[in-house]
Amino acid sequence: MADSLAELQGALDTFVEERNWAQFHTPKNLAMGVAIEAAEIMEHFLWCTGDESYSLPKEKHAEVASEIADVLMYLLGLGRALDIDIIAAARDKLAVNGEKYPVEKAKGRSTKYVDLD
Amino acid sequence: MADSLAELQGALDTFVEERNWAQFHTPKNLAMGVAIEAAEIMEHFLWCTGDESYSLPKEKHAEVASEIADVLMYLLGLGRALDIDIIAAARDKLAVNGEKYPVEKAKGRSTKYVDLD
Amino acid sequence: MADSLAELQGALDTFVEERNWAQFHTPKNLAMGVAIEAAEIMEHFLWCTGDESYSLPKEKHAEVASEIADVLMYLLGLGRALDIDIIAAARDKLAVNGEKYPVEKAKGRSTKYVDLD
Amino acid sequence: MADSLAELQGALDTFVEERNWAQFHTPKNLAMGVAIEAAEIMEHFLWCTGDESYSLPKEKHAEVASEIADVLMYLLGLGRALDIDIIAAARDKLAVNGEKYPVEKAKGRSTKYVDLD
Repeated sequence: MADSLAELQGALDTFVEERNWAQFHTPKNLAMGVAIEAAEIMEHFLWCTGDESYSLPKEKHAEVASEIADVLMYLLGLGRALDIDIIAAARDKLAVNGEKYPVEKAKGRSTKYVDLD
Repeated sequence: MADSLAELQGALDTFVEERNWAQFHTPKNLAMGVAIEAAEIMEHFLWCTGDESYSLPKEKHAEVASEIADVLMYLLGLGRALDIDIIAAARDKLAVNGEKYPVEKAKGRSTKYVDLD
Repeated sequence: MADSLAELQGALDTFVEERNWAQFHTPKNLAMGVAIEAAEIMEHFLWCTGDESYSLPKEKHAEVASEIADVLMYLLGLGRALDIDIIAAARDKLAVNGEKYPVEKAKGRSTKYVDLD
Repeated sequence: MADSLAELQGALDTFVEERNWAQFHTPKNLAMGVAIEAAEIMEHFLWCTGDESYSLPKEKHAEVASEIADVLMYLLGLGRALDIDIIAAARDKLAVNGEKYPVEKAKGRSTKYVDLD
């Protein structure tokens, strides 16, 4: 896996700066952007079953990758705007989830997982 | 910025495996998860203005970080399930956007950016 | 089915007016509200299969009804703010869809329906 | 305002039945549909301010009406699939909100409203 989020972040910063778009990139708008693009990912899975969702046609697979990219870019932008290190935040949350869903209780049970918020 | 997505991915894989949750993590469900958590980020910005959205109270800031973490984790899970390298996908998309929104045309104009899909 | 949307709209107008909340109810914010509440509906269906989603436990059923209510109220608010008659809009759209997905071509095929936007 | 939701519901039922689409319309999928279309409404408001969101260009206004229509139709479908009367649900919720946000406390304060879930 390509591993450097910091490099991507740098490229994004340049992109936004060159276009003078920071003025539009308030946290509020970036949060909307994340949600809009998340829905565009989802659109590709609306009518298929869970099983079918693993085997997307090649073209659809590429479109999903492109929407995932959009979500990640808005997410990075939001992290930047609010000074949140998104990888560190995920590590912290994973630790919290580990305590919330201990292996012995959560194993094979989606019902516990449902309460995740 | 914490920089290793691969490390986070590994920790996530272990987390899901230990709980035997892969059975629930179809791409369809993970796409829903991304969208649900994206909306939870957005909830914190519903009634504020764009300007106000920069200065969240400390507790809210922590909650937003936690929701951003959830989006990132579902996004990584989705990438894993579909064999998509999310950082590479973002780099590719950024290159596409660079051609779609050339600096000289897009500078300071959100109207062009609106068409981003 | 309770049938009077106009009556509900009137009750909503009074509710908002009494609290002096119109100042927060810009179309932008109401659109966010619709999306946030839509995600809260979806949250109840995240880990179940399509078949399971028909038979919600009683308490969950009531919660889904409550989230559906939220979406409808924000939708009505948005219609009000933009002077859009939401029932008339749905009737018009249904007519458009009728032409877009003619019975003979669309029958039993979700693939056509996927293109609905 | 066009007032008969029951009439619209009837037209929708016929539309779905003629195309034999009920098989795809599980509550889970319809909930996704609501969220996807909600995001499409939102997309039109991503880069504008709250004030600007009142004055959409004519073409955009028509597109927003069309997305609102989609949300309403999925919402009606979901109500049908789960045997939920969406207007009655909204009336009930409005009564609950009336107690949760009493006029004297909530007047002019979005902060209270933020807690609405």
